[in-house]
Order: sequence, then structure tokens, then C-alpha cells
Amino acid sequence: MTQLLRVQNFNVSSDGFGAGEGQSLERPFGHADPGQMFAWAGATASWPNRTDPGGSRGLDDYLVRDFHHNIGAEIMGRNKFSPQRGPWQDHEWQGWWGDEPPFHTPVFVMTHHERPSFTLSDTTFHFVGGDPADVLDQARKAAGDKDVRLGGGAATVREFLDADLVDTLHVAVSPGVVLGSGSRLWESPEELLDRFHCDVVPSPSGVIHHLFWRK
Amino acid sequence: MTQLLRVQNFNVSSDGFGAGEGQSLERPFGHADPGQMFAWAGATASWPNRTDPGGSRGLDDYLVRDFHHNIGAEIMGRNKFSPQRGPWQDHEWQGWWGDEPPFHTPVFVMTHHERPSFTLSDTTFHFVGGDPADVLDQARKAAGDKDVRLGGGAATVREFLDADLVDTLHVAVSPGVVLGSGSRLWESPEELLDRFHCDVVPSPSGVIHHLFWRK
Repeated sequence: MTQLLRVQNFNVSSDGFGAGEGQSLERPFGHADPGQMFAWAGATASWPNRTDPGGSRGLDDYLVRDFHHNIGAEIMGRNKFSPQRGPWQDHEWQGWWGDEPPFHTPVFVMTHHERPSFTLSDTTFHFVGGDPADVLDQARKAAGDKDVRLGGGAATVREFLDADLVDTLHVAVSPGVVLGSGSRLWESPEELLDRFHCDVVPSPSGVIHHLFWRK
Repeated sequence: MTQLLRVQNFNVSSDGFGAGEGQSLERPFGHADPGQMFAWAGATASWPNRTDPGGSRGLDDYLVRDFHHNIGAEIMGRNKFSPQRGPWQDHEWQGWWGDEPPFHTPVFVMTHHERPSFTLSDTTFHFVGGDPADVLDQARKAAGDKDVRLGGGAATVREFLDADLVDTLHVAVSPGVVLGSGSRLWESPEELLDRFHCDVVPSPSGVIHHLFWRK
């Protein structure tokens, strides 16, 4: 079995930004409204933060519930983990996700600044330097015979795309959301078509799923 | 968590038949050509019978790889299990699937004719009478906290639909396949819209996925 590096449920605005400008503790996605960006996922039955038993079970739900399918580790950028920049001021910040992070696997946070690993529920966070190929190598070992998820943000996905290490990408484009500036994934999905096949699948919810896999 | 009864990857012709007429040992789908019916699934990376490492990883692959997602048991009709009708002539027939059936859970075969359970690899087949609600009750217990898959054929899916026991259905319609007669699921998918929501999702491969969930 090939061990894949997969981007799953990555959201961008219609103009290609994964987050807005000005990330802070109060606004993890900067001037972007995550409620609007993730509305399609939040409406599904499989959305992990759902508190009532309802939710849709159509196309969008397949994509949401596939998030964990055969995933043994995640790689994320420092800015997905934390609003802080530079050396760690202390080790109190443990991510945005509370006591039960939704990963349930080892997570490798890419950073130039050392920090000890820690565990919350069934998720262990490791802090690793090195280039994308090195980090992927560590994540693959931790994932056993499963795949590795590349969790973002956009700059981190770009880094791995530029190093040609990504095998599949699912990008959900929200046509009604225009950000103008922020953390950019692409100018246009067509940039990837030289290296990837792509199914463009408009969902009845309005979001447009882009499903890429290597040629 | 609600324990669902789910139809997954059920294929029908453009005129609504799950199989043709004249099932036999040589032709499990009667006059229908399974190669044509399942071509969309066979082209995916996750198709269980794939022997080479290729295959698509777009929309169709999500649906194929979801086949086992959170499934703890399957219910199938006698005619999905065997080309024989009436009392079992002997117990040599063990299904169409060889020594490693693709279910990996308990399977409940609905039949009026008693037969001892048997196990092949990690699949155990049980032979059960009773009405759909009774059979579902047994399958639910065997599934633990997971869902139950309703595997078909069309007559069995109809029986459970008529008893209003189905929670979600994924039906893949092959527009290029016209059978004229056989085992019918529906005259039109619109028959189900009084009780179900439906996402109609045309795949780039040509097949049209119909994803139903209860209103």
C-alpha cells in the first residue's frame, strides 16, 4: 500500500485565501469569518462539534466523515497551532481545540522553536524543525501503515506542494466569500493541473469541492 | 449516537434495475453486465479487487472507500448470496466472493430456509428468517455501536424501504445502461422524495450519485 500525504477539507475563499489577515487569539482566521468559511461542513451530521443529532447526510457529509479515513498522523504549520509568533513565551498554549483535540493521532507542528511534546486526550503534539521532506519522514513513521494528513494553513500546504510531496488534495471553495488578502493557497486551481487530475464537484450546499490526485 | 441502516454503493441502470433477468452461476446479475454497471467503482484506487497500484482518487473514490465506514454488520437478500432458489441442496455454496469476502463483519442472509452459520476469513454468514424489522434487530445487536449496511439486491432494499427502516441510501445510476427488465429498485428516484432529502451529484466519470437521507 502506498502511504499518501493528503490534504482533507481545506477551505478557501473564492479568491483563493485559506485565512484572512491579522490572526489573533480572538480571530484565528484573521478577518475571515470561519462560520461562513465552514458553514458547509458545520451543516453535516458528521461535523465533530455538532451538539444536536441532526445534520445533512449527503455529499458534504461524505467529505467531512472522510477526514479521519486511514489517517495515522497530521502535519500542521505553527500558525495553525497558535496565534503566537517567534520563540514560545511559555508552554501554556496548547492549541485552539480544548482538552479533546479532533485529531486522535500524533500531530507534527512545524516550527523553528523547540518545545517539548505534550499529549491531550488521544492526540500528541510534537514540535519539529527541518524541511518538508524531513517532517514528512517523521510523520510517516508515526503513522504506521496509514496515511498522513497535511492540515494547513495555506503557507504550509504551499510549501509541501512546492516540494512535490502532496498526493491528494481536497479543497472546498466558498463562492460567496471574497477576502482580498490573507494567506493564499492559489490564484486559481488551474495552477495544479499540470501535476494533478481534478474532479470539480459543485455541492447542492453551494460550496465547490475540488478533488485533486497525482497524475 | 444513532445506529443507522445504510445502503452504500448500490448500482442501478438508467431505468432503475439493480440486476437483469435470469440470474445464474455464470451470470450473477442476469442479463446485466456487471463490468458496465460497476465501471465507475472499478476505476477507483479503493476498489477492493484492484490488482495494480493506480486508480482515480476523486469523487467516485470517496464513495467507494466509504463502503466500510462505521459499518458493523450487513444484511443481504438470499439472491445476493446465491443463484440457488428454494431449500439448500447442500452447504457447499459459500457465496460469490471466494475465501476472503469483502464484508469483514457479520452478514445476515435473509432466507426462509434454515442453514448453519459459517465463517470465511473475518466474515461470518448467518441465515435468518423473519420480517425486516426482526432481521434489522439482530444485525443491530451484532454491529455493536456501529451502523448496519443493507447490501441488496433491489427486492431486499425495497422491502426495507416499504417498512420505512432505511436511514440513508447511496444509489449510483449508470446513464448509459438500459436493462428493460429485471430486479427493479424504482421507476424514478423521485418516488423517495416525500421521505428523504436527496443530493443528486453527477460524477465526472459519467455515473450520477444519488445520496438520500431521512427528512
